Amino acid sequence: MIIYDISMTIEKDMGVYKNLEEKRPIIKFERKIPKDSINESSLSMNLHTGTHIDAPYHVDDSGATIDQIDLNKLITKCRVLDLTKVVDSITKEDLMGKKIQPGEFLLLKTRNSFTEEFESDFVYVEKSGAEYLAEKQIIGVAIDSFGIERTQPDHDTHKILFSKGITIIEGVRLKEIEESEYLMCALPLKIKGVDGAPARIVLIKDLK
Amino acid sequence: MIIYDISMTIEKDMGVYKNLEEKRPIIKFERKIPKDSINESSLSMNLHTGTHIDAPYHVDDSGATIDQIDLNKLITKCRVLDLTKVVDSITKEDLMGKKIQPGEFLLLKTRNSFTEEFESDFVYVEKSGAEYLAEKQIIGVAIDSFGIERTQPDHDTHKILFSKGITIIEGVRLKEIEESEYLMCALPLKIKGVDGAPARIVLIKDLK
Repeated sequence: MIIYDISMTIEKDMGVYKNLEEKRPIIKFERKIPKDSINESSLSMNLHTGTHIDAPYHVDDSGATIDQIDLNKLITKCRVLDLTKVVDSITKEDLMGKKIQPGEFLLLKTRNSFTEEFESDFVYVEKSGAEYLAEKQIIGVAIDSFGIERTQPDHDTHKILFSKGITIIEGVRLKEIEESEYLMCALPLKIKGVDGAPARIVLIKDLK
Repeated sequence: MIIYDISMTIEKDMGVYKNLEEKRPIIKFERKIPKDSINESSLSMNLHTGTHIDAPYHVDDSGATIDQIDLNKLITKCRVLDLTKVVDSITKEDLMGKKIQPGEFLLLKTRNSFTEEFESDFVYVEKSGAEYLAEKQIIGVAIDSFGIERTQPDHDTHKILFSKGITIIEGVRLKEIEESEYLMCALPLKIKGVDGAPARIVLIKDLK
């Protein structure tokens, strides 16, 4: 069995959306050896920092919250698509040759996977790409950027995908991952009533 | 495929160790529809609140931190043991009839699974029980209590288990889970250099 960990490490100096200070995690000791008998830390973080899963409630007050997402959609076969040659955004044309089938969970590997820093021109899924994925009836999509959309004031990409029940994962790390099929386990924290949650996500080959 | 989610829900009023206020999670909106165009929340929590995995660094400054734990130990076959008749603590005697084999990951189901509240007399793993598990060379153990030990100033249970490389999971919920074998996926947040991390944990039957 080979396990590929495609999660970002949560740490003070990690890349965060637009490099905003308030998006950085704060990790601190609450108790510390030797003063206390144990080390015990706490974490404060924006729920959309690092590798995370968006809930429809992120863009729609009437949408499902993260604790309502069916885990059958997150423990599933998946396929990594190599889109590393895309320069700006992923359009319908970029996806058309990929033989996408209904029921697939797709992970989009782009040039984003080759930097840990936030870059303002990161590759995202453009509206025509989102429409094409929706039309193809995939069950979920993950991207290796800090966001699946960029400068879309109406959040078209999120809304098009969510309207078809498609799960959205942001911030996966795919540098070492080849275009292929895998078993994915994407497990977000079960937080009541919120718009998203950080997740640990792995791809598995030859499960045993 | 059947997925059993054995994770606690993270919310303001959840049960926490000794009912300490500082152990309660704080969830708050950073942005909110309609004032903002999206809902976006943040979370502050002690890393040992809710369902979580302890790292050896929790009790030993030279121990491994949570980001160093091998995921092969957390995505593994496992077995749930029914110990619901144990009144006070799990001793060697309680475990001796369970035919424990080297390499097993065990989940200990006790009366703790039948309450969501913190109870000061929760069932834990007593020193002789920990020594027996270590002797049997298991790879990990999960318990349905807020802690695997109780009033052990020297943290014997943690230290005995960690000294043999045994992974410790606390706060799983096993009320609905029968004594049987399962595939477990226990995925903690990948936080750099800390003593533990909240995790989403599932048991799976008939993976496909």
